[in-house]
Amino acid sequence: MDWKQQLNNYTEKINRELEKYIDGNANNKNQTLIDAMKYSLMGGGKRLRPVLAIASYEIFKEDTHKVLPCACAIEMIHTYSLIHDDLPAMDNDDYRRGRLTNHKVYGEGTAILAGDGLLNYAFEIMLQEALKEDNIKSYVECMQVIAKAAGVHGMIGGQIVDLESENKKIDKETIDYIHLNKTAALIAAPLKVGAILAGANKDDIKNMEDIGRNLGLAFQIRDDILDIIGEEEKLGKHVGSDEDSNKSTYPSLYGLDYSINRVKELTCEVHEKLNRYDTKSKFLYELSNYLINRDF
Amino acid sequence: MDWKQQLNNYTEKINRELEKYIDGNANNKNQTLIDAMKYSLMGGGKRLRPVLAIASYEIFKEDTHKVLPCACAIEMIHTYSLIHDDLPAMDNDDYRRGRLTNHKVYGEGTAILAGDGLLNYAFEIMLQEALKEDNIKSYVECMQVIAKAAGVHGMIGGQIVDLESENKKIDKETIDYIHLNKTAALIAAPLKVGAILAGANKDDIKNMEDIGRNLGLAFQIRDDILDIIGEEEKLGKHVGSDEDSNKSTYPSLYGLDYSINRVKELTCEVHEKLNRYDTKSKFLYELSNYLINRDF
Repeated sequence: MDWKQQLNNYTEKINRELEKYIDGNANNKNQTLIDAMKYSLMGGGKRLRPVLAIASYEIFKEDTHKVLPCACAIEMIHTYSLIHDDLPAMDNDDYRRGRLTNHKVYGEGTAILAGDGLLNYAFEIMLQEALKEDNIKSYVECMQVIAKAAGVHGMIGGQIVDLESENKKIDKETIDYIHLNKTAALIAAPLKVGAILAGANKDDIKNMEDIGRNLGLAFQIRDDILDIIGEEEKLGKHVGSDEDSNKSTYPSLYGLDYSINRVKELTCEVHEKLNRYDTKSKFLYELSNYLINRDF
Repeated sequence: MDWKQQLNNYTEKINRELEKYIDGNANNKNQTLIDAMKYSLMGGGKRLRPVLAIASYEIFKEDTHKVLPCACAIEMIHTYSLIHDDLPAMDNDDYRRGRLTNHKVYGEGTAILAGDGLLNYAFEIMLQEALKEDNIKSYVECMQVIAKAAGVHGMIGGQIVDLESENKKIDKETIDYIHLNKTAALIAAPLKVGAILAGANKDDIKNMEDIGRNLGLAFQIRDDILDIIGEEEKLGKHVGSDEDSNKSTYPSLYGLDYSINRVKELTCEVHEKLNRYDTKSKFLYELSNYLINRDF
């Protein structure tokens, strides 16, 4: 199967699961909350994180049903972080993925609760699955991987440093901390979780996590590069120094050429680490290429 | 031992544990986040919910160490809900427990992340404990009880309906939904969790949960009554109808006398359900009396 067709199949499967999870939740009282959660959850995300969980799982095992709840939970956590990130007190964004942000549609109070609801619900669905599992311990290990990646030493840790760094010149160590925690942690987690649930050995689990960290970092640097290129096209002039921006980025700290090279280096490392799985990692190989070279 | 002395012992034990959990978390990057989380977590709460978890556990078993992580996690969830509730987009409160609210000290963005951090961290500490447990399944069951009580069919469900009910006349069914979900769910959960972790039988687990629901409802109605009494003292005139308030309460819907009687009824039910444990439930008997008759 063509890898893009496979991506499409995965995405459809994930969307169906997410919709099922979220629709099962409304009662006649909390409808607004569920609507607000659904608005962002079903609002056209790329489903990158759950796709990575499935793709990682499939390297080691053939069925995929076991990884789906964790994959969906990670997407819920990612979505909650976007809802809270978009709030006026944070990035103050009116649009995301071409649609009004959650608080612009439902109001700030409901958006805060919708975010809280998605984070909490992510754990609810994983706990429900864990109790059905024969190997409950490895399921709990996966939940721990996800909770750590989303937490104060992971995504939320990255978010606070990002928030504190606005309108400030930051050093290279700090931008790496932000990228590795705010972005890469929740990209490494699904790859690690897929391997754990499929019963991979310790070495492979570590390998998949490393792939995720490199991929996540490359993905974020590519984002920074695209911001600069987009800005240049919009302004019709060269931008590339932090003086033009209120946020330090990889290109503003290291220059555009270095940043482009860093993405290439990280991509090579990802591909090298995938090589050991031969044809089984073809999908992840193609997907990582696509993500890292994207111009969207 | 005098029950108030016992309450004091419990509270000190919980405070020590909470402090240990939160202090173990700072690195040189996320310090502001940890400070903000700690500011509210160690900001003088009554520790009612974790105390209930320990007291319930002790009815069925003598040691308490096993229930402490869940007890602390519930307090973290309660604290995060207060931080988010106090935000300008929600209740817009400047003070809580005689101190500035989290966002007044750290700013709204950090307060949102501190709340997110506490919710996520609650699951992190429980997952870490679960992996050390011989009986991991009953630990996961407890986590599920807590997640459900805190979620879209529990506390967050109650919060959204509460938010939607501001400046609106609501019906009796709706106020019961708010009280049972926003308040009573996270009071019933620790009592249920204490019983599960202590290995109580199904009937006792259900009994402790019922006690929690009645206690939580009585606690919240007592709160509503105290608001009215406080308002009357402040205004020097009788208040008691919803016309004087932008929020429907038990007294505004049912009248003060009915509300006082309802608290008495619920207290009787709590005491009846506690009777079967004889002297072992003495602490909970006294504590519920105290909470329900309090004038603070």
